[in-house]
Amino acid sequence: MSRLTHMDESGRPVMVDVSHKAHTTRVAAAAGLVRMKPETKALAVSGEAKKGDVRAVAEIAGIMAAKKTSELIPLCHPLPISQVEVRVEPVEEGLAVAARVRTTGQTGVEMEALTAVSVACLTIYDMLKAAEKGMTIEAVRLVEKSGGASGDWRAE
Amino acid sequence: MSRLTHMDESGRPVMVDVSHKAHTTRVAAAAGLVRMKPETKALAVSGEAKKGDVRAVAEIAGIMAAKKTSELIPLCHPLPISQVEVRVEPVEEGLAVAARVRTTGQTGVEMEALTAVSVACLTIYDMLKAAEKGMTIEAVRLVEKSGGASGDWRAE
Amino acid sequence: MSRLTHMDESGRPVMVDVSHKAHTTRVAAAAGLVRMKPETKALAVSGEAKKGDVRAVAEIAGIMAAKKTSELIPLCHPLPISQVEVRVEPVEEGLAVAARVRTTGQTGVEMEALTAVSVACLTIYDMLKAAEKGMTIEAVRLVEKSGGASGDWRAE
Amino acid sequence: MSRLTHMDESGRPVMVDVSHKAHTTRVAAAAGLVRMKPETKALAVSGEAKKGDVRAVAEIAGIMAAKKTSELIPLCHPLPISQVEVRVEPVEEGLAVAARVRTTGQTGVEMEALTAVSVACLTIYDMLKAAEKGMTIEAVRLVEKSGGASGDWRAE
Amino acid sequence: MSRLTHMDESGRPVMVDVSHKAHTTRVAAAAGLVRMKPETKALAVSGEAKKGDVRAVAEIAGIMAAKKTSELIPLCHPLPISQVEVRVEPVEEGLAVAARVRTTGQTGVEMEALTAVSVACLTIYDMLKAAEKGMTIEAVRLVEKSGGASGDWRAE
Amino acid sequence: MSRLTHMDESGRPVMVDVSHKAHTTRVAAAAGLVRMKPETKALAVSGEAKKGDVRAVAEIAGIMAAKKTSELIPLCHPLPISQVEVRVEPVEEGLAVAARVRTTGQTGVEMEALTAVSVACLTIYDMLKAAEKGMTIEAVRLVEKSGGASGDWRAE
Repeated sequence: MSRLTHMDESGRPVMVDVSHKAHTTRVAAAAGLVRMKPETKALAVSGEAKKGDVRAVAEIAGIMAAKKTSELIPLCHPLPISQVEVRVEPVEEGLAVAARVRTTGQTGVEMEALTAVSVACLTIYDMLKAAEKGMTIEAVRLVEKSGGASGDWRAE
Repeated sequence: MSRLTHMDESGRPVMVDVSHKAHTTRVAAAAGLVRMKPETKALAVSGEAKKGDVRAVAEIAGIMAAKKTSELIPLCHPLPISQVEVRVEPVEEGLAVAARVRTTGQTGVEMEALTAVSVACLTIYDMLKAAEKGMTIEAVRLVEKSGGASGDWRAE
Repeated sequence: MSRLTHMDESGRPVMVDVSHKAHTTRVAAAAGLVRMKPETKALAVSGEAKKGDVRAVAEIAGIMAAKKTSELIPLCHPLPISQVEVRVEPVEEGLAVAARVRTTGQTGVEMEALTAVSVACLTIYDMLKAAEKGMTIEAVRLVEKSGGASGDWRAE
Repeated sequence: MSRLTHMDESGRPVMVDVSHKAHTTRVAAAAGLVRMKPETKALAVSGEAKKGDVRAVAEIAGIMAAKKTSELIPLCHPLPISQVEVRVEPVEEGLAVAARVRTTGQTGVEMEALTAVSVACLTIYDMLKAAEKGMTIEAVRLVEKSGGASGDWRAE
Repeated sequence: MSRLTHMDESGRPVMVDVSHKAHTTRVAAAAGLVRMKPETKALAVSGEAKKGDVRAVAEIAGIMAAKKTSELIPLCHPLPISQVEVRVEPVEEGLAVAARVRTTGQTGVEMEALTAVSVACLTIYDMLKAAEKGMTIEAVRLVEKSGGASGDWRAE
Repeated sequence: MSRLTHMDESGRPVMVDVSHKAHTTRVAAAAGLVRMKPETKALAVSGEAKKGDVRAVAEIAGIMAAKKTSELIPLCHPLPISQVEVRVEPVEEGLAVAARVRTTGQTGVEMEALTAVSVACLTIYDMLKAAEKGMTIEAVRLVEKSGGASGDWRAE
């Protein structure tokens, strides 16, 4: 593993300086899963869940959360998002969530994409918990990123 | 699976009425894991991560996020939290996060505990992503809840 | 018109004291309208608007805004909402918005209901403005309220 | 009516991509009215309303709300506002509200101007509702906009 | 000095449990000062400052900040404020700020009163900094508190 | 004292236009002090305070508050911060707080640095108030700024 440069010697929190970085187009995609019983998934997909249309509410919650990322993550830089898309789709194990975020700025949008996915997953849990409390949020991860000095990256 | 009562016939979003519910003490505990390489975990535990002391920052982020739950989750009721604790501990696969939330109110605090865990996990990712982009957030789940009309519940 | 009691003699802003008021169930309903061309309304109802399903997004935006009322209105008291419902329906002149909010607290929820309606109307405008910039938000008003010392009230 | 391009085929919410748009100066002006009885208006103008100076508080609320627009409107892009002005003036039917917002960015500030007007109107209602619950918020509309690819626009 | 009880043995952050505390009326008053040159004070009092009426804007900012206290102070409990008053008055050394906050709840409102004072002072600085950058915020302190298990307290 | 230009003739609040200003690197440093008894300081430094590690929590609170500045200060422009550092250090009279903020934008970051210091001071008060209610926040001030049309400035 590469040793970290620019480390703050005292181990104290710091929002690192990005003022020297280039303004480039940066994209990040993240994904996650809410694992649930088939009956619970059926309820979500049928639109009969207690609190309304699970997928639509979760997608909107994810988009709005992407805009709140720097408020939630203490050392994350605020940045002007130029696009967010969040999709909730049924898969065999439950509901899968995918998010894609784009910006033109000095830092990447990995955290925005991961935050969108996490909050969409939490919203799915909230809307279905009357039916199944044992659902789990799993495999929340970065899928790929592009742009920025550290170059492109894609999960294996 | 139990059929849902009080369902809104049209499938549209609704923040359900809780005004008839009793004000009781309610507690919820949730947990999650950020899976990472041993070298990344060593970096976190040593306090040498680029952005500061990972565990302290993530614990504070989790506590603050619990207070923002009803802002993030569209149909979640606001409620006055009377206690929050978030702990980040090294385990074999990476860093484990646990949260416990307590309130005296008309709805449970499951979402507050799960939100605290999720945001603490996201913060851990943010602080260590310079070292490892492939970390995953896993097994975010409710561990137990007590209080309220639906009674106590504990994950199997 | 009744002279106002408890007026702050200096004309300066004050969040008035409600600590002596009883905790009672309070309900308020508000309504509003976004006036638009028939073609624009058709676009909204068909679900073909550029940014997605207009009605679902506006309803969720209204619910979330109700929870932010005391952040937006400077002298408004924060209070724990126990229910919110926002409905967007097509009417002859465009899209009508209705909101109903309930709480058990020391102040009424008129502002929460009006804020939910206003933000739902703004969201409708946002989602359809690519089609028609000349839409207008009209007749945002309290429809009825109940509970509290000032008694019940209903618009004529 | 012009067919919408770039429509998301599935009808699901999306914060549309603006990363290809030019950074230009954009201005938007919006207006609205709170209709009230002459006695209520007199109370507002005299500075004797229960909660303080109605016009000053409403103007500040409108300015602060403009900065919160992207938090309130789900699919609205965050953008750095470079100027906001909100004015509340007595007119025959009640209190008129006007807002002007300017930015240098990739999207227009119509929503910021309309949000400023709406929240200023809501604040006026809040400060005067002890005197008249039947006030209505009317004619909230875009007055003009300039800048951006879609060109200038002015209400007829 | 009294040894602290209930201390978290590990030195980690915790929002302490208040669920066993009584719901009582609690009041806190705080004060502060922005020290400035006589010419700057004259500018503020005359209403000729660049950004508008300094005192009115600072008072409103203080009231709104009181409602945001638990968002700003990590381990502070959210609580429903029932009254806030903030006053800015000219004194010999500059502008003095005083705040009084009241609630019926399980924790005191010292932090709400101090936050209101601090943000009102910051707002005064912001509105006058074009005239004098060397102003200082001084003597921000609790003046008195009443209610709660720890009893009444008054600064000497 | 220099007469203020661009003054709004009516004395009403305005977020002044900065759209003509250059995008330059701007830095501001601010400082403050929480005065306390030696025993209280000892408690803070030993890590034995009731709510956790005072210095780490206050530093994080200060960083997060810098990002909220334009939400708290009514006429302050939002701007994308590129770096924040907050340090809490023991000094003879208590705990000293220093903040440094950097941006590339059209307005300075004086308010961001002062807000970071103020909220860090409030957090210190919150975490130690169980031990000493009479602590005072003092000498919150701008230390230096650079960048922007008004040039560099340094406190005497």
